[in-house]
Amino acid sequence: MDWVAADYSSLLWWLDMTGTFVFGLSGGMLAVRRQLDLFGVIVLATAAATAGGAIRDMAIGDQPAAVLRDPSYLLVTFAAGLTAFFLHRLIERASRPVMLLDALGLGTFTIAGTQKALIFGLHPASACMIGVLSAVGGGVVRDLLVTEIPRVLREEIYAVAAIIGAVLVVLGDRSGWPPLATAAIALAATFLIRILSVRLGLRIPRAP
Amino acid sequence: MDWVAADYSSLLWWLDMTGTFVFGLSGGMLAVRRQLDLFGVIVLATAAATAGGAIRDMAIGDQPAAVLRDPSYLLVTFAAGLTAFFLHRLIERASRPVMLLDALGLGTFTIAGTQKALIFGLHPASACMIGVLSAVGGGVVRDLLVTEIPRVLREEIYAVAAIIGAVLVVLGDRSGWPPLATAAIALAATFLIRILSVRLGLRIPRAP
Amino acid sequence: MDWVAADYSSLLWWLDMTGTFVFGLSGGMLAVRRQLDLFGVIVLATAAATAGGAIRDMAIGDQPAAVLRDPSYLLVTFAAGLTAFFLHRLIERASRPVMLLDALGLGTFTIAGTQKALIFGLHPASACMIGVLSAVGGGVVRDLLVTEIPRVLREEIYAVAAIIGAVLVVLGDRSGWPPLATAAIALAATFLIRILSVRLGLRIPRAP
Repeated sequence: MDWVAADYSSLLWWLDMTGTFVFGLSGGMLAVRRQLDLFGVIVLATAAATAGGAIRDMAIGDQPAAVLRDPSYLLVTFAAGLTAFFLHRLIERASRPVMLLDALGLGTFTIAGTQKALIFGLHPASACMIGVLSAVGGGVVRDLLVTEIPRVLREEIYAVAAIIGAVLVVLGDRSGWPPLATAAIALAATFLIRILSVRLGLRIPRAP
Repeated sequence: MDWVAADYSSLLWWLDMTGTFVFGLSGGMLAVRRQLDLFGVIVLATAAATAGGAIRDMAIGDQPAAVLRDPSYLLVTFAAGLTAFFLHRLIERASRPVMLLDALGLGTFTIAGTQKALIFGLHPASACMIGVLSAVGGGVVRDLLVTEIPRVLREEIYAVAAIIGAVLVVLGDRSGWPPLATAAIALAATFLIRILSVRLGLRIPRAP
Repeated sequence: MDWVAADYSSLLWWLDMTGTFVFGLSGGMLAVRRQLDLFGVIVLATAAATAGGAIRDMAIGDQPAAVLRDPSYLLVTFAAGLTAFFLHRLIERASRPVMLLDALGLGTFTIAGTQKALIFGLHPASACMIGVLSAVGGGVVRDLLVTEIPRVLREEIYAVAAIIGAVLVVLGDRSGWPPLATAAIALAATFLIRILSVRLGLRIPRAP
């Protein structure tokens, strides 16, 4: 049914823009904390929100990268940067909703990235890697730009939630689940694992 | 008239090589200051001069990247690296001409990058982003390689000059100005804004 | 003779996987030393082993990148990460064999990268640059991810061995030597120069 496909892709677009905005906020907030100027705030917002997808597209060969084809991405990251610049105190206090939205963005980026890699014919293992890279790559570039060891390498079960989401997308694709159901299950899993890991303070083991 | 096009593209090539050399110098000088060996000096010269254009080409899908197609780029960056290695004291004292040439390189790289992105059919906003990335990306990679927060994020109106140049290129393209006139205006604007910002010590605001 | 070609490419594959494993070990060991968790260990192993080749493929336009087409690469880097995680004490003590294997990986990656760039029609100078970038790029990304100045910029004749190997590949290609002989000579040269430089403590000059 066409209206399902249309609704689904429109839903995906909105989820994608939400993820872009929240990841942009994370970049903008880090820039404010590191006392960068307005340009630096917008650069870090853009890097955090778009670098993961740009690396994904360059690695699989979908060029120009999606972020360059739909100007909505740049508009949304600029809005996120300006929001961080002018409202950083407000956002600092709203750490809980920001964390929830960030978990949503993590799920959306992972699922969209993994699905795209599968569509480009990648092996399931490569598709998972690309999905996770889409979701965490922006944060890595954001942190490196201010010479911090990327948070995803230091803290909490962030990437693990993305890995499980990516594996679920691949499983669903292999098992012939309806794409909408696959995406919903993978999104819910990524989101909940991320939220629970923060709540329960779960950590991944270090070397013995 | 063909000879205008030929002259124009030959002029662009010379401007491009000038920018490549000066950006290469900036990388080589940083490497000397950080006491890297000869290989490190040449790597930083190459990164500073070519990484911006390479990222641009990978993002828009023009491959092999331009720097790999015309060996003049590598020749010029090697020359810049060797110059920095052997003549760093001389260059240190010539900070004013180096700054002027750097402002010229900033303008050239911005304009060439933005024009190329427009030729590849990118949206004007994306073309501006790619133009600015072409011009400042090399400096970002240069600074990250020695784990410094990129200068463009910390100091002065460097990127803003590039942004204005890129916007002028897009405006000229949209308004049907002759490409040569557009390039000249955008180059002059980028160059002058950069020079004036250094002279007057202008800065971009930080978050309130 | 087909069996020569088959043997040659099968040999290259095994050398490539050996290089991937040892480079992966180097990433995993650095991550353990910096007390990253299991995910971080695997990320650094993957970055060290695959980022050089991925940058090579994105720059020359061979997409999806080779690391995404043959899942063996990911399998081998995961194995290297897990080995570093669980056996880091053992590996620490086996520094000499690890260094020998690393020199082998340096040679293999350089030669494979340079040959690939020549096959893609690049200028010899560009092919050398791409060959060296294939071999040292992974280590650069590995070190930047933990905000260290890349070892290749700080220490010993590592890159120089790769440069000589790449030049030999180009020379052999130009002079019509049999590919197998070219590869063998270039591999031996890179390997021996690297080993000797460590033994003799050779260094590249710093700026006067």
